[in-house]
Amino acid sequence: MIIVPENAIGDLIGRTESFDAIEAVFAAMARDDAYNFPVIREAIGHADALYGFKSGFDRAGLVLGLKSGGYWPGNEAKGLTNHQSTVFLFDADTGKAKAVVGGNLLTALRTAAASAVSIRHLAREDAKVLGMIGAGHQSAFQMRAALEQRSFEKVIGWNYHPEMLSRLEETAREAGLPFEAVDLDRLGAEADVIISITSSFAPILNAAQVTPGTHLACMGTDTKGKQEVDANLLAKARVFTDEVAQSVTIGEAQHAVAQGLIKDADITAIGAVINGTHQGRTSPDDITLFDGTGVGLQDLAVASAVVDIAVAKGVAVEVDF
Amino acid sequence: MIIVPENAIGDLIGRTESFDAIEAVFAAMARDDAYNFPVIREAIGHADALYGFKSGFDRAGLVLGLKSGGYWPGNEAKGLTNHQSTVFLFDADTGKAKAVVGGNLLTALRTAAASAVSIRHLAREDAKVLGMIGAGHQSAFQMRAALEQRSFEKVIGWNYHPEMLSRLEETAREAGLPFEAVDLDRLGAEADVIISITSSFAPILNAAQVTPGTHLACMGTDTKGKQEVDANLLAKARVFTDEVAQSVTIGEAQHAVAQGLIKDADITAIGAVINGTHQGRTSPDDITLFDGTGVGLQDLAVASAVVDIAVAKGVAVEVDF
Repeated sequence: MIIVPENAIGDLIGRTESFDAIEAVFAAMARDDAYNFPVIREAIGHADALYGFKSGFDRAGLVLGLKSGGYWPGNEAKGLTNHQSTVFLFDADTGKAKAVVGGNLLTALRTAAASAVSIRHLAREDAKVLGMIGAGHQSAFQMRAALEQRSFEKVIGWNYHPEMLSRLEETAREAGLPFEAVDLDRLGAEADVIISITSSFAPILNAAQVTPGTHLACMGTDTKGKQEVDANLLAKARVFTDEVAQSVTIGEAQHAVAQGLIKDADITAIGAVINGTHQGRTSPDDITLFDGTGVGLQDLAVASAVVDIAVAKGVAVEVDF
Repeated sequence: MIIVPENAIGDLIGRTESFDAIEAVFAAMARDDAYNFPVIREAIGHADALYGFKSGFDRAGLVLGLKSGGYWPGNEAKGLTNHQSTVFLFDADTGKAKAVVGGNLLTALRTAAASAVSIRHLAREDAKVLGMIGAGHQSAFQMRAALEQRSFEKVIGWNYHPEMLSRLEETAREAGLPFEAVDLDRLGAEADVIISITSSFAPILNAAQVTPGTHLACMGTDTKGKQEVDANLLAKARVFTDEVAQSVTIGEAQHAVAQGLIKDADITAIGAVINGTHQGRTSPDDITLFDGTGVGLQDLAVASAVVDIAVAKGVAVEVDF
């Protein structure tokens, strides 16, 4: 059994490999070559923790396994990350345990890769201004991955707590780009691509604030009740997602569907665009919206890539099992 | 993270420790101190494999985790066990991965411990004859654990394939007891305790074949459609189980409940008997029946015991993670 500890991940996998893994597995999902199993999510009644598993099987890549993890709000006071994830991979031919891989950085990378994949396949080629809603830990990952997809010239951003915007400014500066803090009217009017990455339970951006031609990647909504944008925006937009079943139940689309503004059939798996079986953006004036809910197969895809890289580099730690 | 490979399990844990772990977790379940999460079970569409997870949390013992595993029918031809299981434990206070434990022998031990616990708490004290239905790999584990619970003087057995009965004979001989192959009429008439451990999809034992005072442990039915005994036997018996929700859906009780012969409320968690909140057997003439469906918390309980023993003995293999 191969062990890849959390602190080894950063040296093994970066944005390029993560992008390729996520793009490939989204494509496999849309071809029905890969599917996610039901999600387990439990409030365990101890340490205020939320705990569960996301799992699945990619028949194309023969990647089988699960990400186990959860949210332990008391961890930060102990010097640990509140989100704790571990990925377990199994040999699809025998069922034997194959690898245990630290899942914290991988979760950040695969979430960033998902919005980057949506930008590559749905944003206008001439996109120049990236708009960020949210300035938490994950926002820097989303921005770095997004900036590689188009020739962006500027980043603008908004956050509920403006004092946190320095993270966006620093991340933009690292990439050699100017940053400006703006209100939501300006953000909607000026951004060609918008990424929202918040834990919001009420719409932040109104449909009227978004201009034709914009691509949005809504990455924060992964639970019943969360919401980042006006449900009417989904009715105006061409809506794409990682997995339709999750999009309409726990993703950003849950509200538009519940209100009867759109139907399941109006939502397209991004993999269909990658595979060329769906056109994606049809005109420069389309508003495209990617509802990134986060599926287990993403976690398995990046973990499997890490294991392959570790083996190829000869740095894989193997334990008798 | 502590690693306990499959081949180390046999030297670390035996029937006594397994019995204690299973009895304690059944008791915790009945006190609502421990609960199982929903089961994931998937036909993955590769190698004819059935794959899934059983998971749960024991708040009393702070044991959190899952057993991942499944059935790979092609394994035997490769020199591997068809059933492949691995248990993963997490620190309930932080969510960090704590241990990876081989789950194959543990699954056999915990299943045997469950019927042994039922015998300790439900069988007549003066039980002398043990009847075995089924002679597969698991039957030897069930018999050995059962024989420690009462002063048995004889083992009798029946199997669909009589040529396999030598396993029961050898296991009885190891314990210094005579064995006799019998038909089902004699088995029902003479056995004081009956363990069924088959993969049957039709009733083997009729209600009329079972005599007053008998305790039965039906251990084979863990899936919709499987059945080891006549549904009418459950109507005649006092019925106990590991988890009522599983008993009525995928356990032996599924048929009696579906036919309206018994209701959910007629089935008692064995933990209530262990805790002394339910009387269990009320008379020497009661027929008691334990429906052992197999829950994730059993796997976690024996795996956690193994880890504690390995640490106490100083043989735990710890890897940086």
